[in-house]
Amino acid sequence: MNAPHSTPGVLAATDATFNNHLNPSFLQACLRQATDHTPMWLMRQAGRYLPEYCATRAKAGSFMGLATNRDFATEVTLQPLDRYPLDAAILFSDILTVPDAMGLGLSFAQGEGPRFASAVRDEAAVAKLAVPDMAKLQYVFDAVSSIRKALTQTDGRSRVPLIGFSGSPWTLACYMVEGAGSDDYRLVKTMLYSRPDLMHRILAINADSVAAYLNAQIDAGAQAVMIFDSWGGVLADGAFQQFSLAYTARVLAQLKKTHTDAAGNSIRIPRIVFTKGGGLWLQEMAALDCEVLGLDWTVNLGKARALVGGSEYASGVSGPGKALQGNIDPNVLFAPPAQIATEVARVLDSFGKPYQGAGTGPTHIFNLGHGISQYTPPEHVAALVEAVHQHSRALRA
Amino acid sequence: MNAPHSTPGVLAATDATFNNHLNPSFLQACLRQATDHTPMWLMRQAGRYLPEYCATRAKAGSFMGLATNRDFATEVTLQPLDRYPLDAAILFSDILTVPDAMGLGLSFAQGEGPRFASAVRDEAAVAKLAVPDMAKLQYVFDAVSSIRKALTQTDGRSRVPLIGFSGSPWTLACYMVEGAGSDDYRLVKTMLYSRPDLMHRILAINADSVAAYLNAQIDAGAQAVMIFDSWGGVLADGAFQQFSLAYTARVLAQLKKTHTDAAGNSIRIPRIVFTKGGGLWLQEMAALDCEVLGLDWTVNLGKARALVGGSEYASGVSGPGKALQGNIDPNVLFAPPAQIATEVARVLDSFGKPYQGAGTGPTHIFNLGHGISQYTPPEHVAALVEAVHQHSRALRA
Repeated sequence: MNAPHSTPGVLAATDATFNNHLNPSFLQACLRQATDHTPMWLMRQAGRYLPEYCATRAKAGSFMGLATNRDFATEVTLQPLDRYPLDAAILFSDILTVPDAMGLGLSFAQGEGPRFASAVRDEAAVAKLAVPDMAKLQYVFDAVSSIRKALTQTDGRSRVPLIGFSGSPWTLACYMVEGAGSDDYRLVKTMLYSRPDLMHRILAINADSVAAYLNAQIDAGAQAVMIFDSWGGVLADGAFQQFSLAYTARVLAQLKKTHTDAAGNSIRIPRIVFTKGGGLWLQEMAALDCEVLGLDWTVNLGKARALVGGSEYASGVSGPGKALQGNIDPNVLFAPPAQIATEVARVLDSFGKPYQGAGTGPTHIFNLGHGISQYTPPEHVAALVEAVHQHSRALRA
Repeated sequence: MNAPHSTPGVLAATDATFNNHLNPSFLQACLRQATDHTPMWLMRQAGRYLPEYCATRAKAGSFMGLATNRDFATEVTLQPLDRYPLDAAILFSDILTVPDAMGLGLSFAQGEGPRFASAVRDEAAVAKLAVPDMAKLQYVFDAVSSIRKALTQTDGRSRVPLIGFSGSPWTLACYMVEGAGSDDYRLVKTMLYSRPDLMHRILAINADSVAAYLNAQIDAGAQAVMIFDSWGGVLADGAFQQFSLAYTARVLAQLKKTHTDAAGNSIRIPRIVFTKGGGLWLQEMAALDCEVLGLDWTVNLGKARALVGGSEYASGVSGPGKALQGNIDPNVLFAPPAQIATEVARVLDSFGKPYQGAGTGPTHIFNLGHGISQYTPPEHVAALVEAVHQHSRALRA
């Protein structure tokens, strides 16, 4: 890991990252550059709260039928963008595609969470694990290419950037050992505390797999990548650093930081790390070699900005500091629009005055602190997006 | 709430709090006084992991049959003390007895969590709520008296102190609105964000009820009391302070700080507040008018001590600062004894050098960071207790 406050670097005189974008605000904020509003997207924005998503899923027959079909995956990825003026798209997929490609057999029963046919619970099962052939994940890379194509307008510009993603090594390990979701993480923690050697082996394989997987998503056209450490927050202090953070760092160390586009330009690929329940370890996460940290709703954005958001740097200089992404409680979306607007203002105001310089400075990407609930009224999402764009513009006026 | 670092107060020349105790180490540590080892007890120490508990529960027929019967409650409270050299007993009861006394109808289906027959979801249901007649909770106060009697030796001294407890106003509200446990707290948060007036009304009634309830436990013989804010950590920053912390403070403001014993001595009653997932708000919790803060395993004890543990004060002076209680991951108990001892040492060492002066200073009460799992092997608990006592004595040598 790099030092949290390394010396500022001088940027290349020309940066093609924002070329060919109708709306580069998300990428600009990821790279700590000023925007005229706070860009936003929603975790799980293509999902069951949208009737059009449910219709496509019904056609596909199952969640994996949806995720593995390029056309369906493209269709549902674009659905929320057609309803709401969101500033980024995120690949429709699941955080657990990598262990599925390892042969563990991922499925989603109706109304339930993910489940693996083969759980990894003993030395023999761990010995069989290996970095999967990326060809088994070709359906994901095909979906990325297809979505990028669908997002490209007739003038060649992208409507919004496309985010690729994966679960973190630790989060994958939780599901691989438990075989499904858990409320106590008993099996995975039993292995962690009883046989740390086995746990480290799983995590090393997961980290190298996730790195290869995200690099392939970048090659296929992902313009930013996000690591979902959904279960990092269930670990004890000390165990988090050893079993989650260290392997997220191992992924990041292998990730491409730039991609060369068809015209030969070098495009920067921002990397986002989100540890749900990780607010206590923010200063340690500041040392990760990534551009953005995701935060859940328990974190005060102003305090997070002061801790890890960095300072302002002159034009042409890339200073240290993380862009912050988050963090409204998704349950706010069950309140009426007026209360949604109040809570949106509270979150935007807690971050404080938006950076408006010509160089780099502290930036905020608005999001939920967790995936959107399937019970969310779609019209409340419209109210949320409008409130974010309106209030964040007002803050800059 | 008091200021987190109020001025030190001069203690009465004689303090009868530790009189008549065979083992006052828990009370001493609560009051930031030195002990020869780190005292310990375990959340849910009387529970399903003990075969003798299961036998008594089978006799009682149901969880509530067990909790409402003075003799059964006494029997199971003492069971873990007969097996392990624990330094405190905790009343066998449930955190939800207060809303049950409000008429909501608490029950526990086999293998499931608590459930209320009547959930509180609208204005009419809220209007019906009131502080319950404490006579409806007489079974709890009877159990407290009975357990105190059972803990009293023939020489009149207590084997260990007895802790009374309740759920926090917010945690009670979660169950009252949801009607049962929840994984997203959608209903209670919908009310919180849509109708904060109703939520504040529930919380005010809960706070006044919990205060009356804990005071009656103190009158019946509880020698310390603990407020379990089990679900405080699910709230957003801002909402936690407004809907959980403020009402915990409202309880504390009404609690008796001392009790006059049969001999006319004034006995101090330490108050413990435990917010699961509350590590980010520790500095704000330091302002609570209580003696001890409970911590879950995500918190680094050394950092918590530096933030809220206070300094050392001369003999006869009660300085500000909280004793800290916690915080090993209960899943450590699934590892073999050697690894349990390693993790125990890690937790004790993270707190740092124990206070050994004649006045007051930073102290630690060892505990789990959450209730013990029903799947825990009882012999592993023996290994844990032995490791805590041994290593914490070695740290003082």
